[in-house]
Amino acid sequence: MNVEIITIGDEILIGQIIDTNSAWMGQELNGRGFDVNRITSIRDTKEAIKNALDEALRRVDVVLITGGLGPTNDDVTKHTLAEYFNSKLVFNELVYKDVCDFLKGKVKDVNELNRQQAFVPENCEVIRNKVGTAPNMWFERKGKIVVSMPGVPSEMKAVMTEEILPRLDAKFETGYIIHQTVLTSGIGESILAEKLQDWEKLLPQYISLAYLPSPGRVKLRLTARVEDENIGKVKIKSLVSQLYPLIGEYIYGEEDKLPEEILGEMLLSKKSSISVAESCTGGRIGHLITSISGSSAYFNGGVIAYSNEVKMNLLGVKENLLMEYGAVSQEVVEQMALGVKQTLNSDYSIATSGIAGPTGGTKEKPVGTVWIAIAGPFGVESQKYFFGEIRDKNIQRASNTALVKLIRKLLINNI
Amino acid sequence: MNVEIITIGDEILIGQIIDTNSAWMGQELNGRGFDVNRITSIRDTKEAIKNALDEALRRVDVVLITGGLGPTNDDVTKHTLAEYFNSKLVFNELVYKDVCDFLKGKVKDVNELNRQQAFVPENCEVIRNKVGTAPNMWFERKGKIVVSMPGVPSEMKAVMTEEILPRLDAKFETGYIIHQTVLTSGIGESILAEKLQDWEKLLPQYISLAYLPSPGRVKLRLTARVEDENIGKVKIKSLVSQLYPLIGEYIYGEEDKLPEEILGEMLLSKKSSISVAESCTGGRIGHLITSISGSSAYFNGGVIAYSNEVKMNLLGVKENLLMEYGAVSQEVVEQMALGVKQTLNSDYSIATSGIAGPTGGTKEKPVGTVWIAIAGPFGVESQKYFFGEIRDKNIQRASNTALVKLIRKLLINNI
Repeated sequence: MNVEIITIGDEILIGQIIDTNSAWMGQELNGRGFDVNRITSIRDTKEAIKNALDEALRRVDVVLITGGLGPTNDDVTKHTLAEYFNSKLVFNELVYKDVCDFLKGKVKDVNELNRQQAFVPENCEVIRNKVGTAPNMWFERKGKIVVSMPGVPSEMKAVMTEEILPRLDAKFETGYIIHQTVLTSGIGESILAEKLQDWEKLLPQYISLAYLPSPGRVKLRLTARVEDENIGKVKIKSLVSQLYPLIGEYIYGEEDKLPEEILGEMLLSKKSSISVAESCTGGRIGHLITSISGSSAYFNGGVIAYSNEVKMNLLGVKENLLMEYGAVSQEVVEQMALGVKQTLNSDYSIATSGIAGPTGGTKEKPVGTVWIAIAGPFGVESQKYFFGEIRDKNIQRASNTALVKLIRKLLINNI
Repeated sequence: MNVEIITIGDEILIGQIIDTNSAWMGQELNGRGFDVNRITSIRDTKEAIKNALDEALRRVDVVLITGGLGPTNDDVTKHTLAEYFNSKLVFNELVYKDVCDFLKGKVKDVNELNRQQAFVPENCEVIRNKVGTAPNMWFERKGKIVVSMPGVPSEMKAVMTEEILPRLDAKFETGYIIHQTVLTSGIGESILAEKLQDWEKLLPQYISLAYLPSPGRVKLRLTARVEDENIGKVKIKSLVSQLYPLIGEYIYGEEDKLPEEILGEMLLSKKSSISVAESCTGGRIGHLITSISGSSAYFNGGVIAYSNEVKMNLLGVKENLLMEYGAVSQEVVEQMALGVKQTLNSDYSIATSGIAGPTGGTKEKPVGTVWIAIAGPFGVESQKYFFGEIRDKNIQRASNTALVKLIRKLLINNI
């Protein structure tokens, strides 16, 4: 069953806000077997709204609209929908009561603009907005459904979850859509695709594959559309197991999670702690780890060892190591990992030292050279990487790769 | 001049990624006097791409496309564009050289899939991609322009900034467009707008104002479209000077730069150094500072003091302070700033300690409470903030606010 989304508002088109509503709706719809065919963001004008609706209804049977329902004058959606469905706005006592109840204690008086919210097209079904003042409207005509919701994310999500999605579920019979993610790191998209060429050819028609790259990682996404949920799951499971002989050394997870989430869960379940010693990543790894709620249970902290003095004074890196091998070296990065693990009294540690660029490279150590070390009960291990010349990507790739390196070590050793 | 944006990719429609490209492009285009008429997100299929292009070109003369240019099989954009413009794909030696150069050191061999990137429609102008492998394509037909760019944000932004926007400017611009940015921090968008109500009313027709909020900051952007460049500049200068009596205490810059850039330039020009002691921001401030190329000239490093042990052992925070006042307190954050400044032997320092949430709040110290301290030749200063309940935003707002706090101190003291 195909669905389209229309988001209304100049603030989206001029980039003042990012349209996060569509992504949330896409996820929810997709998870229930509805396909989002198109997302269209349009201006707050009668003409734009009518045209977009006309076009969408030519392609699909269900159109979900968000935005354009505020009380101020620049919102024309409601008037346009009344016209579009050959109806007129009428005062709705129940909506007015909802508006008054909602505003009680929030404003001194319910003003004329608020009162306008209670006017709704006569031929739509009003669906109450429990968390705002703009009512939701459900139109049906000739088997086609158009739903108009507020653009405020919390209001849209509330009515989608409680009313719209259950109604769509009940109305349309859809098959099942099963997603399976396989997380890889340490291999580029094109080499990965080459290794999977033969495997990809064996995918049945009802299963599609997508490569979703981000710095230092490529996420594979398998999507099956099936009548029988179990058969789909068994087939996907078997396909995923065939990936291990081909690219097993790059796989670090099968759930759609970030490396910092996966590592966090591993450390939590072990009741282990971690610390970081960051040179070229400059705090990014600490930031990623602490972006996860509850990370204080396993993250002790770290040292951003940007200067050599900090490497020596706080991490116990000997001056002669720095003199002999340089800061970007196996010797130094391993001592950084061991040093922070000991000083911060943690079970595991991660250390990075590299040349983030765009300057500072040499012939022997070009920009993008990064040493990454991990330490733990297994001792210390390190590896040299080349991440390219763009500072920002370099830092991101180094940080993600470092997290995945420890995840894979924990997976393999089961320690 | 009206423009439309088409973003290609199933991952947008199923909500796996949020389309941030369109918002960025909308901002940039709008700032140069181009109006984005519609943003359309479509599937990765020939039919969807052709239909969306047909429709968009019926409405506007310029269509900017992002996405669908990866080397793997699920990307059909390039083939579709060749068909659409009655052309065929031909091997382009220059693109192939770029691909090889870009991949050098990153992969062992340039494989067949990488080589495919060098095939481009014969009748398009290829615009080089300096930060990735997929070339940008510029098509012109009957006065209409279609540009295809990669969906990777960094690649799209690079080519938009360096090539596409200047070309569009040159092609369509009449008169001058002057931008002036005013950076504010510590005041919300709606209160700012209220304070500027009367000032806004005095803006002449040819000057537009945009509020561009991001966590902890609101950027004001004035755009003048004028015949005479000098008159426009004088007018804008006078308008900006009128802002200082109204909101001067929140302004920290007039150039369109990030706080970490501004602070970096200040420290460089003073030949001063800085260090950070981060609790609730977990490395984010260090990451921001080191995202600036050349930051090793002034950034010594820092301590991510997540646990109390780290605060005590590395920053000299006394146990009795932690016991008496708690980690999130003026006493502790000031000692953190002084401690890291001394231990890392820097001229200035920044420290944060707060409750990032969503758990860990108390009645006295709710989630979002953050103490920020700055230290320098002036001694140490600190302030308590409330940044709200969302962990991610909380960390971002705290980090940005901390940087701006030191910038404003340096501006005022001129030290």
